[in-house]
Amino acid sequence: MTAQSGTGFTAGELQQAAKGHLWMHFTEMAAYKDADVPVITRGEGAYVYDSKGRRYLDGLAGLFVSQVGHGRTEIADAIAEQARELAYFPIWTYAHPKAIELADRIAGLAPGDLNRVFFTTSGSEAVESAWKLARQYFKAVGQPARHKVISRRIAYHGTTMGALSITGLQDLKTPFEPLVPSTVQVPNTNIYRAPVHGDDPEAFGRWAADQIEEAILFNGPETIAAVYVEPVQNSGGCFPPPPGYLRRVREICDRHGVLMVSDEVICAFGRLGEYFGAQRFGYLPDMITFAKGATSGYVPLGGMIARERLMEPFQEKGSAFAHGITFAGHPVASAAALANLDVFEKEDLLGNVRRNAPAFRATLEKLLDLPIVGDVRGDGYFYGIELVKDKETKETFTAEESHHLLKGFLSTALFDAGLVCRADDRGEPVIQLSPPLICGQEQFDEIEHILRNVLTEAWKRL
Amino acid sequence: MTAQSGTGFTAGELQQAAKGHLWMHFTEMAAYKDADVPVITRGEGAYVYDSKGRRYLDGLAGLFVSQVGHGRTEIADAIAEQARELAYFPIWTYAHPKAIELADRIAGLAPGDLNRVFFTTSGSEAVESAWKLARQYFKAVGQPARHKVISRRIAYHGTTMGALSITGLQDLKTPFEPLVPSTVQVPNTNIYRAPVHGDDPEAFGRWAADQIEEAILFNGPETIAAVYVEPVQNSGGCFPPPPGYLRRVREICDRHGVLMVSDEVICAFGRLGEYFGAQRFGYLPDMITFAKGATSGYVPLGGMIARERLMEPFQEKGSAFAHGITFAGHPVASAAALANLDVFEKEDLLGNVRRNAPAFRATLEKLLDLPIVGDVRGDGYFYGIELVKDKETKETFTAEESHHLLKGFLSTALFDAGLVCRADDRGEPVIQLSPPLICGQEQFDEIEHILRNVLTEAWKRL
Repeated sequence: MTAQSGTGFTAGELQQAAKGHLWMHFTEMAAYKDADVPVITRGEGAYVYDSKGRRYLDGLAGLFVSQVGHGRTEIADAIAEQARELAYFPIWTYAHPKAIELADRIAGLAPGDLNRVFFTTSGSEAVESAWKLARQYFKAVGQPARHKVISRRIAYHGTTMGALSITGLQDLKTPFEPLVPSTVQVPNTNIYRAPVHGDDPEAFGRWAADQIEEAILFNGPETIAAVYVEPVQNSGGCFPPPPGYLRRVREICDRHGVLMVSDEVICAFGRLGEYFGAQRFGYLPDMITFAKGATSGYVPLGGMIARERLMEPFQEKGSAFAHGITFAGHPVASAAALANLDVFEKEDLLGNVRRNAPAFRATLEKLLDLPIVGDVRGDGYFYGIELVKDKETKETFTAEESHHLLKGFLSTALFDAGLVCRADDRGEPVIQLSPPLICGQEQFDEIEHILRNVLTEAWKRL
Repeated sequence: MTAQSGTGFTAGELQQAAKGHLWMHFTEMAAYKDADVPVITRGEGAYVYDSKGRRYLDGLAGLFVSQVGHGRTEIADAIAEQARELAYFPIWTYAHPKAIELADRIAGLAPGDLNRVFFTTSGSEAVESAWKLARQYFKAVGQPARHKVISRRIAYHGTTMGALSITGLQDLKTPFEPLVPSTVQVPNTNIYRAPVHGDDPEAFGRWAADQIEEAILFNGPETIAAVYVEPVQNSGGCFPPPPGYLRRVREICDRHGVLMVSDEVICAFGRLGEYFGAQRFGYLPDMITFAKGATSGYVPLGGMIARERLMEPFQEKGSAFAHGITFAGHPVASAAALANLDVFEKEDLLGNVRRNAPAFRATLEKLLDLPIVGDVRGDGYFYGIELVKDKETKETFTAEESHHLLKGFLSTALFDAGLVCRADDRGEPVIQLSPPLICGQEQFDEIEHILRNVLTEAWKRL
């Protein structure tokens, strides 16, 4: 047996080490009792390769992360250069050039007066930082009762306890309760399963936004700090905002003095064809959270961008936002983000997404001829395909059927067929797609082809 | 004006960008209204350089991070190679060689059956992961009421809301409450200000450990999930454990079925002359958290190591630890950690710390002849120096005096004198030291020399 890609381990030793020591995330470890852990060893552009030399189209960009694709030597070179120069220094009291340059550049890309960049290492920390800022801000300006957050059902906002409290997936919270009190979940924008106005997107959008206002009023406007929304909600399988929805949410927040947080950990950095989802849908939030695509995942980095007025109380003498994160604004991560943005510009990746998004949608919509495909929805390079038992009635699968379909068949079959994507059941069963932003028609066809074959087989097995 | 170190900015533009866009952490931004933000541009070994070309001894290892020192080309090369090969892939369902190899290696270094490695991107996430595991574990084994955590006063465990709830610094929590309920703080091991047994370390250790048992009994043993302790508590200025204390805490946890979490975000990876603080003080916790030194900060990475029995319920079919973090076990971060550990081995850094620790202590203890130095305490390469107004009575400074002394004079004066360290007032005023593990007598003397001059000047100004 030969050693595996840069490790001193044979393939067998690697499996043994993985099963014995690596606690995989959100993973049923028992699934690997008698099966190999799939080991991805190499990436190139939109494709990754496993330890057996098989090639896969990375239809999820890793995990909504790899915007510029794998194997970018220019980013590798930039991070090595920075690591040699200054690998680490905090932005507590001191600063360093790359964090400053990146903050300046992100502020320049963000809409309106979203000018103040607070870095983190992850999306969860970004979501927590926005909540912490909202809470300390309101205490500083004499509205100390404003501490609650409103978010949407099925929405995922992270897994640290604050972010998890905002998350609208009860199954992810139950094992860990009690969490941070005072979060409230309202209906999301899943128009495919709209309880009202399912045939009228604008009316549905008004209704869904008004659910937020109702929750603000019911819970006491003077107690609400912030509303969290993703531009396009990921969990549940890509719920785009109905026309006018996000601007109406902005108006509602303004009416009640509530901050609007645009959680763009997934949607920022080109996923929807703009640097930020707020630009895609024309609204100005008070804070934007980001992570994943900011470095295309080459080095972990996240952050939160705030409007000028949110910093005002913290510019008083003796005052400080009482928050900090050791690795935030990390020099090597900042260098990766800057090199990543250089690629965005040089290759016009936003333009690539905008030009190709209609073709991506049209290609995926071909699958609507399959009896199992109930809905194809999304925006930019970010799509969900909802699977149904009966297309006419939109009848969905039972929990057991869904588990059997997704975990028992689809996840493995899609991977075996050469496609990395996500077969998910946090909500109705969906296939999630989020390919690197360098993709074009060739990859769209490949995705459609694999999905058609595997979903046809899945239907036969039901 | 020339461009500053790899950015397109002049020195003036860099200052303007920093003040306009970079929200610095735990920082009074008003301090830089009329002063420059200190910009660190380059590091080499135990020294860093600022944008004006001045050299500083990095007496804090960045922020308890840079164990192997700055400018390590071998780590820069390793991360570049990994970034070219596979910069990012999740360890959700899949895995990749470097995360597997690192999990295997860390499990091999950790004591006893601490064999299961759950990666994160930060120390806060590591602390949260241990609490989440404790909560889901107890629900899985039929003890669902066990959700509370006991930790120590003044102890810092992180800033995400779960970690912040465990933190024993009320000033850091007040702006953000309400937090996660059900955390309880007990006395720490500050023997310099011991309320009892100040002259008898063993008796003091028994007393301090028994405070934990009392808190367990008072709050209901059947409701307590975990006790969090740092091997040497950082915040407050380095409180080492009295003899027998940590082993007694272990016994108390066992007696009441409570998990013991050793928070080693600072103490692991050589800081105390061993890979883990648990080895330094001879106890076996149920979980160890780590971050900072694991990569010497070259790329953000953290994690949590659990004993075998904690994974058992999650090896049942259909069961999973319902937790995950996008950037966890990041390939480039894992490569950095592996290269970092190679340096530890090649240069016998643990041996360096063990051989030199007595000289470090002896050199710092020379400062005890100064009237302002009340106490010098710590272990390995990790020390706190407590400043007092009256050495005989141990009278400390008022909050105002302390703020004036630390923020108004010492922080700036020490930096101007060429030493990066931390003048802190979370607790009594202390100077914190945590130099890179490559340091020797030359650096100890330099630290002592600068501290002697600046503290002498501080005393004159009182």
